[in-house]
Amino acid sequence: MKILDGKKLAIELKEEIEQEVKQIISKGGKPPHLAAILVGNDGASETYVASKVKSCKQVGFESSMLRFDEDITEKELLETVHKLNKDTKVDGFIVQLPLPKHINENKIIEAIAPEKDVDGFHPVNVGRMLIGLPAFISATPAGIMEMLKRYNIDTQGKHCVVVGRSNIVGKPMSILMAQKNEFANATVTMCHSRTKNMAEITRTADILIVALGSAEFIKADMVKKGAVVIDVGITRVKSDKTKSGWKLKGDVDFDEVAPKCSYITPVPGGVGPLTIVSLLRNTLLASEKKIYK
Amino acid sequence: MKILDGKKLAIELKEEIEQEVKQIISKGGKPPHLAAILVGNDGASETYVASKVKSCKQVGFESSMLRFDEDITEKELLETVHKLNKDTKVDGFIVQLPLPKHINENKIIEAIAPEKDVDGFHPVNVGRMLIGLPAFISATPAGIMEMLKRYNIDTQGKHCVVVGRSNIVGKPMSILMAQKNEFANATVTMCHSRTKNMAEITRTADILIVALGSAEFIKADMVKKGAVVIDVGITRVKSDKTKSGWKLKGDVDFDEVAPKCSYITPVPGGVGPLTIVSLLRNTLLASEKKIYK
Repeated sequence: MKILDGKKLAIELKEEIEQEVKQIISKGGKPPHLAAILVGNDGASETYVASKVKSCKQVGFESSMLRFDEDITEKELLETVHKLNKDTKVDGFIVQLPLPKHINENKIIEAIAPEKDVDGFHPVNVGRMLIGLPAFISATPAGIMEMLKRYNIDTQGKHCVVVGRSNIVGKPMSILMAQKNEFANATVTMCHSRTKNMAEITRTADILIVALGSAEFIKADMVKKGAVVIDVGITRVKSDKTKSGWKLKGDVDFDEVAPKCSYITPVPGGVGPLTIVSLLRNTLLASEKKIYK
Repeated sequence: MKILDGKKLAIELKEEIEQEVKQIISKGGKPPHLAAILVGNDGASETYVASKVKSCKQVGFESSMLRFDEDITEKELLETVHKLNKDTKVDGFIVQLPLPKHINENKIIEAIAPEKDVDGFHPVNVGRMLIGLPAFISATPAGIMEMLKRYNIDTQGKHCVVVGRSNIVGKPMSILMAQKNEFANATVTMCHSRTKNMAEITRTADILIVALGSAEFIKADMVKKGAVVIDVGITRVKSDKTKSGWKLKGDVDFDEVAPKCSYITPVPGGVGPLTIVSLLRNTLLASEKKIYK
């Protein structure tokens, strides 16, 4: 059994991005610039955005954070989006979700110019991803695809089972793994809360990608011997073994499942660290105009 | 075994649309207007467009056909698209594919205003379909979903196997069948040319949707007893039993497979007749501004 070490891979990928930025600057170009819109004071959102800003610094990007109070109107937020769309100093930007309930998230996302939508949430990017055209692909699926590629995991003709059907992980993941290209070409099954005989299906997976958000849902008897297991879940559960009284758990019961796998991602330190790298990569692509010419 | 009679269903659905058009007109509204762009003299394309125009007449739509020679430039075609985008008399329009090789099809499709893209090929519509937002859904998947609904086929928690991964059938079909709603909620497996053990997988299907374009590919031993079988394929093969010397075959070996099924679509007369109805339905929705408000 080998660990798919997302933490280590993220460091390598960040170094590659840093080198590319240095090259751009040495040729007289300007560093990529990511902007982030943060509304309200949600603790988790603040942490995520801070971490994204910090990563920008690490790789030599410029970044800016636009903070707004919880009571910003939808109209004001739309105006901010329009302003960033036109701002030639900003290559890509994100609106940290969730937004307050009085704001229509889809409306905000659809207002973002697709060529600056480095989160890959705009329907144009989702549609281009499905069709197989160049697109900004959302962070988690992009990170997983990169991980499989860098670890040389053979996906051709393999049976990939995706557990979960969210718009930002399950659905795009199922499409990306089935695409006709050398790093995909898998037969893909997408399972979800309404699936019957879940264990029967997961047991047939050569590659099992779990994004359900249910701590330790996948047990050893649900996994085939030699499977590659990718755990996207991250849930905070009570623990008397840590100082904080909390522990992060994935959707996979790691201790039980790991011995059966050929490869497995730990939680934390698996898929998580790659998501920010995907965002940085998308911002770099945006600044180089490699997706939308 | 029951036949899923697409021909009969198409007549019913067209009558429903005709009634809706009459109501619109009785309330002082104008009939929906579909425009079709046809480039060159491809025989099949001419037949398809003629058939679409004829169907428009049947249900009381207005229609117009814009014909261009094979040597129209990409720029001229783009200008035509822009003109139709702005033409308030036209509710929806299609560009009949394939286009001549010197024209970039994706560029033309992406130039169509999403709110007039009644073929549902624009990335915005594809993306909105995946996300689960209101969207124009392409004709074949929309027709199949309508057929399953009208025949009251239970899809909840069933295993649906989609054979084929095209952008206009396989991929959208696999997403639509997995969506969280009362007419979907299936566990979905998408197979394709690179799938190993195809028969092993198709045999687990409660609902088998085949869109491979390979005549009589699915044999009896690839189908579970009691399965619902939807055949999207249509291939012209030589025959000494018909006057013309040709016969239309589906992707399913009907004679072998039908006795094992609970429901099956014939070819012709199955999915085919529903595709034009989907186009009419999308045009009606466009004229009523029900997808994009």
